[in-house]
Parts: sequence; C-alpha cells; structure tokens
Amino acid sequence: RVDGARLMNDIHSTSEWGKGERWGDADTEIGMSRLSLSDTDKQARDWFHKTTTALGCKVHVDAMGNQFAVRPGLDNEAPPTYAGSHLDTQPTGGRYDGILGVTAAVEMLRVLNDNWVETAYPVGVVNWTNEEGARFPMSMTASGVWSGDIPLEKAHNLKSVIPANDTATMRSELERIGYLGDVPCSWEATRMAAHFELHIEQGPILEAENRRIGVVQGVQSYKWFTVTVRGRDAHTGATSFQHRADALLTASKMILASHKLATQHGALASTGILNLKPGSTNTVPGFVQFSLDIRAPDNETVGKTEAACKSAFSALAAGQDVVDIQTGCAPSSRQCTVDWRTDFVSPATHFHDDCISCVQAAAQDLCGSSGDEADAEVKGRDIGRWGKLMTSGAGHDTVYANKRCPASMIFVPCRDGVSHNPSEYSSPEQCVDGANVLLGAVVRYDRL
Amino acid sequence: RVDGARLMNDIHSTSEWGKGERWGDADTEIGMSRLSLSDTDKQARDWFHKTTTALGCKVHVDAMGNQFAVRPGLDNEAPPTYAGSHLDTQPTGGRYDGILGVTAAVEMLRVLNDNWVETAYPVGVVNWTNEEGARFPMSMTASGVWSGDIPLEKAHNLKSVIPANDTATMRSELERIGYLGDVPCSWEATRMAAHFELHIEQGPILEAENRRIGVVQGVQSYKWFTVTVRGRDAHTGATSFQHRADALLTASKMILASHKLATQHGALASTGILNLKPGSTNTVPGFVQFSLDIRAPDNETVGKTEAACKSAFSALAAGQDVVDIQTGCAPSSRQCTVDWRTDFVSPATHFHDDCISCVQAAAQDLCGSSGDEADAEVKGRDIGRWGKLMTSGAGHDTVYANKRCPASMIFVPCRDGVSHNPSEYSSPEQCVDGANVLLGAVVRYDRL
Ligand SMILES: NC(=O)NCCC(=O)O
Ligand SMILES: NC(=O)NCCC(=O)O
Repeated sequence: RVDGARLMNDIHSTSEWGKGERWGDADTEIGMSRLSLSDTDKQARDWFHKTTTALGCKVHVDAMGNQFAVRPGLDNEAPPTYAGSHLDTQPTGGRYDGILGVTAAVEMLRVLNDNWVETAYPVGVVNWTNEEGARFPMSMTASGVWSGDIPLEKAHNLKSVIPANDTATMRSELERIGYLGDVPCSWEATRMAAHFELHIEQGPILEAENRRIGVVQGVQSYKWFTVTVRGRDAHTGATSFQHRADALLTASKMILASHKLATQHGALASTGILNLKPGSTNTVPGFVQFSLDIRAPDNETVGKTEAACKSAFSALAAGQDVVDIQTGCAPSSRQCTVDWRTDFVSPATHFHDDCISCVQAAAQDLCGSSGDEADAEVKGRDIGRWGKLMTSGAGHDTVYANKRCPASMIFVPCRDGVSHNPSEYSSPEQCVDGANVLLGAVVRYDRL
Repeated sequence: RVDGARLMNDIHSTSEWGKGERWGDADTEIGMSRLSLSDTDKQARDWFHKTTTALGCKVHVDAMGNQFAVRPGLDNEAPPTYAGSHLDTQPTGGRYDGILGVTAAVEMLRVLNDNWVETAYPVGVVNWTNEEGARFPMSMTASGVWSGDIPLEKAHNLKSVIPANDTATMRSELERIGYLGDVPCSWEATRMAAHFELHIEQGPILEAENRRIGVVQGVQSYKWFTVTVRGRDAHTGATSFQHRADALLTASKMILASHKLATQHGALASTGILNLKPGSTNTVPGFVQFSLDIRAPDNETVGKTEAACKSAFSALAAGQDVVDIQTGCAPSSRQCTVDWRTDFVSPATHFHDDCISCVQAAAQDLCGSSGDEADAEVKGRDIGRWGKLMTSGAGHDTVYANKRCPASMIFVPCRDGVSHNPSEYSSPEQCVDGANVLLGAVVRYDRL
C-alpha cells in the first residue's frame, strides 16, 4: 500500500513550480500554469530526474524530452513495465491532471524499495512531454513520436500557439531547457513491456455514481483543426452590413453551427483558441483563426461531424443561412473564404485486455478490502459497486503507448467532473486509491 | 490652388514612417500601421514640427500631445482659423485616413506663403493625438480632452488594447516619445476661431454617385462598449455540452444577436476586438472579452439598440434562446455572466452653418470651374451634381472641435468606400480636389 502523506506531499511540493490561479483559501487551493518546456516544466523535470535517480533508477531522456526512469528487476533483458503520465499542465490547469499519474508512479517506486520488492522484470516510470497540447498544438505529442505515429521533425517544428512573443518551437525549447536527449525517441530505442497510467477522470461519471475506481477500456476518437476565415478589414462606422465581409461575424456563426451539428451527430465540438486581426474597436476584422476540437466515441461519427461542419462553414462563409443560423441582416454582397488545416488526429482506442484485467484485479483488491462492499458481486468484468468499466473522453499518452505494448488506465473521480480548470480537485483518499490500484496493476503485470 | 505633386509627395514620403501591409505592386501601394504614440508616430510628429516651423509657424504642444502650428495674420489677438486632422492610423490602415487632412493643411500653409497671402487673422494647422482610438480605446481622445468632454486624467490613464506586452498608457507613451507638452489641453488655452477638416469619405456614396466633394453637415451617433463574458474553463473532451458554461459559444451568440438587433433598429453593431482565456485547443474558454461599437444617425436609435443588446445578452448568458438564436444543444445546466463597460460615447453632431457654407462655396468654386458642369444649378444647399451634402458614418476630431467653435468637414471619395484597410485609396486628383476646397473654406472663413 502507498504512503498517502508522501504522495500528497509530492503532488503539492512539485506544484510550487508553475503555480497558477488561486481558487480557494487553503495553501494548496491554487491551480497550475506549467506549460510544456517552460522554465517551470524544467524545474519539475529536474525533480523527476533527481528523485528517481535517488531511488536507484537509471534515467534517460529521448529526443522529445521524454524522461524514463528504470528500476532493475531480476531479469533485465526484458523490457520494463511502465507507469507514468505527464508533468505539463494547461495554462489554467489544476494540480492533478498528469501530475497525479507521475507522482503516483514515483510513489510506486518508493513502496517497492521500502518493501525490498524484487520484480521479475524491470519497472519504469515515464514523464511524457507536451501531453496537453496546450502550448504546442498536438496533444500527446511525444508519446506519439515514441510510437511512430508522429514524425520527429514535425513534432520538433511545432510552434507555440501563444500569440505575440512566443516564437518558440518544441525543438528550440527542448534545447533551451536542456532536455533534448540523445536517445532516439522511439518504441524500439526505449522498449516497454506494458504501460499503465493513473489519471483523474476529468468527467462527472465516477462521482455521480459514487464509484472509487474507473477501469479504463479505451479512449474516444478526436480530431483537431485550425479554421481560418478571411474577409475584409473595413470601417465599423462607414461600412453598411451589406458592404462587409466580416470574418468575426462569420466565425461566430461557424462556432454556433459546429455546436448544432455536433449535437445532431452525438459528438462534441469545441473552440478553445480564437485570434483575429487587426484587433481595433472600429475595424471590422478581416481575419479570424480558431481551433476546432471534434470528439465522439467512434471515428465514423467524428468524420461525419467534420464533414457536416466543412459544408456548413463553406455555406456560411459564402453568406448563406444554413443550419438555421440567420443573421437577419441584408445579405452581404461580399463573401468570406474559409480554410481548414488538420492539426491532430487521435482515432478511437481500445486498450489491451491483459492490462485491463490487471487494473480490474487491483481495483477488486482495493475495493474488496474496503468494508461493507467486500461482498460485492465479482464476476466477469463487473467489479462491483466501487468500480466502473469506462471510456475516456480525454486523450492520454496511453493511447500511443497502447500501439506498441499492452496498456491501460485507471481513473479516480474528480470533483464535479471539472478539469482544465484551476479548481480541479481529487481528495487525498481518491488519489491514494488510484495510486494503490496503479501499484497493484504494475506488480500484477510484472508477475504475468 | 494647391500644388498636387507637393501634396502627394508629403502623403507618400511621410507614409514611410509606419509602413503596413503591401496590397499592390506600385511603390505607394502599401498600407499604414502607425499606432498612436508609437515610434513611427513620433517620426511623423517630428516632421510636422519641423515642416510647419520652417513655413514660419509658431508651434506648440499640449498635455495630450496635440500639435498646433500657427501662421500669423494681420490681427493676432483673435484666435486662428484651423485646418487639421490626425497622423495616427489603424493597425492595418491606409495612407489617406487622417494623413490627407494634415498634409492638405500643411499644403495650405505653403500656398498661402507662396502667394504672399496675408490673412485677416492667424491660420492654424493641428495634428490631433489618437483620433483612431485603435491603440487607446477612445476615438478622438485628445480633441475630446481639448473640448472638455473627456477628463485629462482619464485620457492619460487609457491603457493600450493590444494584449500581451503593451502595458503602456497614453501618458507613459507621451512622455516616452517626448510629446507631453506643457500647454494645458483645453479650448481655453488653445483657442480656435473655427476648425475645418478634410477627410476621405470612408464610405461608398460619393464614388457611387460620381460626386467630387462631400459637404459634411454632421456625424452620426456612436457608443463603444467592452463586454465581458465569464463561464467556466472545462475539458473539451470530457465535458458534455450540458455541463459547460462556454464563454466563447455565448459570446458568438451575442455577436450574432447584436447584428440582428442592429438590423432591426436601423443601426450598425460591430465587434473588432475579441480576447479569450485561457486559449488552449482542449479547454472550453471560461473568459471572453469583446468590443461592441453601436452606431446610428440619432442618439435615440443607438440607445434603443444598446438596450436591446443588453437584454438579449443577459438572456443568452443565462442560456435562453432569444432573438431566434438556437444552439440545438441540450440546455446547459450552467450559466455564464455578462458585464458591460461603456468606453466611449459620441452623440450625433451637427456642424456649424457658417462653416458648412464656407465649404459649400469653396466646393462650388472648384466644381464650377471644372468644365462641363460649370452651369450646374447652384441654389440653396444644392451644390450641383459634383457635390453632395452628407452625414459622416465615422467620428472625427471636428465633432469635438465643433463643441467649442464653428466647424465642419470636407469629404472626398475613396475607392469602393474602403477604409481601415491597407488598400484604402483616393486618387491624386481626388486628394487635390479636397485640398483646394479646404484652402478655399479656410480663406473664406478668415474673411467672414
Ligand atoms: N488528459 C488530457 O487532458 N489530455 C489532453 C489531451 C486531450 O485533449 O484530451
Ligand atoms: N475617421 C475615423 O476613422 N475615425 C475613427 C473614429 C471612428 O471610429 O469613427
């Protein structure tokens, strides 16, 4: 069993690097703003290196800055069983998303050491680079390079999405903070027997159903796009609606249309970034660029929603009233143009049965020993009232890991399903539950 | 008559300071980006000072950086008759808006000097600070301080609207570029007998009707607001539409609603600036702030449109489907909040009859002497097929000047009505027409 105080101390002490917005009065009621490859990300990485080295691991860094710490087993010819996640956060994120997964994996190393556990094979802990995709606009970038799905050069050349002065690329930032490692970033250079990841659910289901553990079977499909709308800069006071090609009005209609169409298709559509030019109160914007994130349980639904948005956006740019979006203004004699760029594709993922079984068994172990539900019906994939088999709405590095080795994940509830928000919160008990299941799953897989 | 080559040379040579986007192949087919109180604005100001001083003027600068150049007359106890405009531009503006008015006024000084004209009273040229309101979000700021409508301190403390690194205020920038003058900014400290301003129309009417000169009788009413929408940052993949308080989706509905409501009221509504937080592809934005510019011929219509937008925005923030804007999504269980801040109010303006008459007479003079229309019917306010009595859609410094002295304006056509755009264009002939009418109007007023 993990040491809860030690785990929580790791979470909160490392969260000093990259503190974000305060949301409550307590010492730890402060969110995180630790963008990938920033100065504070470097501090968190240095901690990871120092701590895992001190725990007896051999640590290496690859060409994407991924950090791998390996604790030897009895047979060190075979690849390690890994636990891990990421230490980067959203610009206004919380202290659990990613951080819980890495600190729980480090805590796992401590428990193994304290108890003089000799695993059959090595056990590893990994900190993946730029999982969030918040600064460099591909999520799970560096696990994607590791799995061979994202070309190294493409990832290295990714530019920061933050407008104005951040002209950095992933490669320039890896160099700047000293984390451009010399090991190739690939599943062949850094082999894994399996990959387990503990994460907060980031959704409301476990909490609503009062479940302690989510046994994650897979991740929904998603795609990211950058949509560019071009119109014509014009004077707001001297240009009639009819003479305008208003890129922002058109983008507003597109955002509304994407929500309508996603709802119709049973998908999600979201815009998190929007930049415009020139940005003056009395100039109709001639240029707008926005992100579009489309998600659904299966690839087909994402594809259909994408196609529906593409055709609606073209019609809206041409000034037509589609999907019931009416301006009520005199139709403009001028049109906008619209361009799409696909930034990122993450197909629906199904995790590996062996790993799901290990998580399930570890969850049964935890929940079975937790009192009045000890007699919960345990048959097949039913893990009783304390656990739930589920699919993740968010992407995770385990999606890419799963392409090259057996993998799966563990979810713990988070308050009100809130994530990517400073006030994201899981209680110490919930964090400890998850860490115990992670430990149990890794040890089980090692035996397997 | 003005010297066209000299005038065009002033326009294009001073446009070297603050060059913007190229839109055509010719040397001068480049727009302007000379934000108020920037380094390039300082260069244009230095040119103004040097040139008018060399032409024999006494130049002074007031506490808002307004530059006043005065050419003595026979009686120097009485205040000067001024011609002027502004040398600042939009971030993606053209080389005529404001610039034509100042350079034509400087050309007027040259014509008076070349012809040894002694005016009855002094004649002045003024370059007003931050007319555009593009960097500091009040248009005609410094003429508004001069007229006593805007408190000096409020203007000095205006912050740049450009996000990220521009933390400047008007006062800090005036100091930095050396244009915080020691004369108080007021109509009592710098007296004016009258104020004339030549400007490009910035709309399509003169061109469409094939008129050479607009005799401007007044300016429509307008108001600027900053609208702030607050929702909740949330994960785009793990948060159902129902669990969201999406500030950007809500702002998109508001922008659409403002267009619908403005159309219903016979007004204009425009959003030129929109900023959001946190700005990450996979985070639903919890914060959006946007500008709203409402205009109409009369104050009442602006007020009604404002009231209609206020009530619609509140309803939209509360998740209601109003003015036929339906998301089609399951109604969200979470609401956004909306706040309004009024940034700027410019009521409808009617210029002074004496000044309108001087412009009209000068226009008749020009148009009457221009060939086949020499016999154009000239009666009452009808100035023949070459001219047009009109109202300005855009605000101008003359609005504030008109509060403290007789004032009016002269418009010349601009291609396709395009303004606040790099490709804004008036032909040399059009510029020269306007400069001749400006000269004629000022001389006529001096005699009056
Ligand atoms: N878990 C998480 O927030 N990952 C970021 C990738 C995504 O957008 O789903
Ligand atoms: N003429 C001009 O563009 N003035 C700026 C003030 C306005 O927005 O109307």
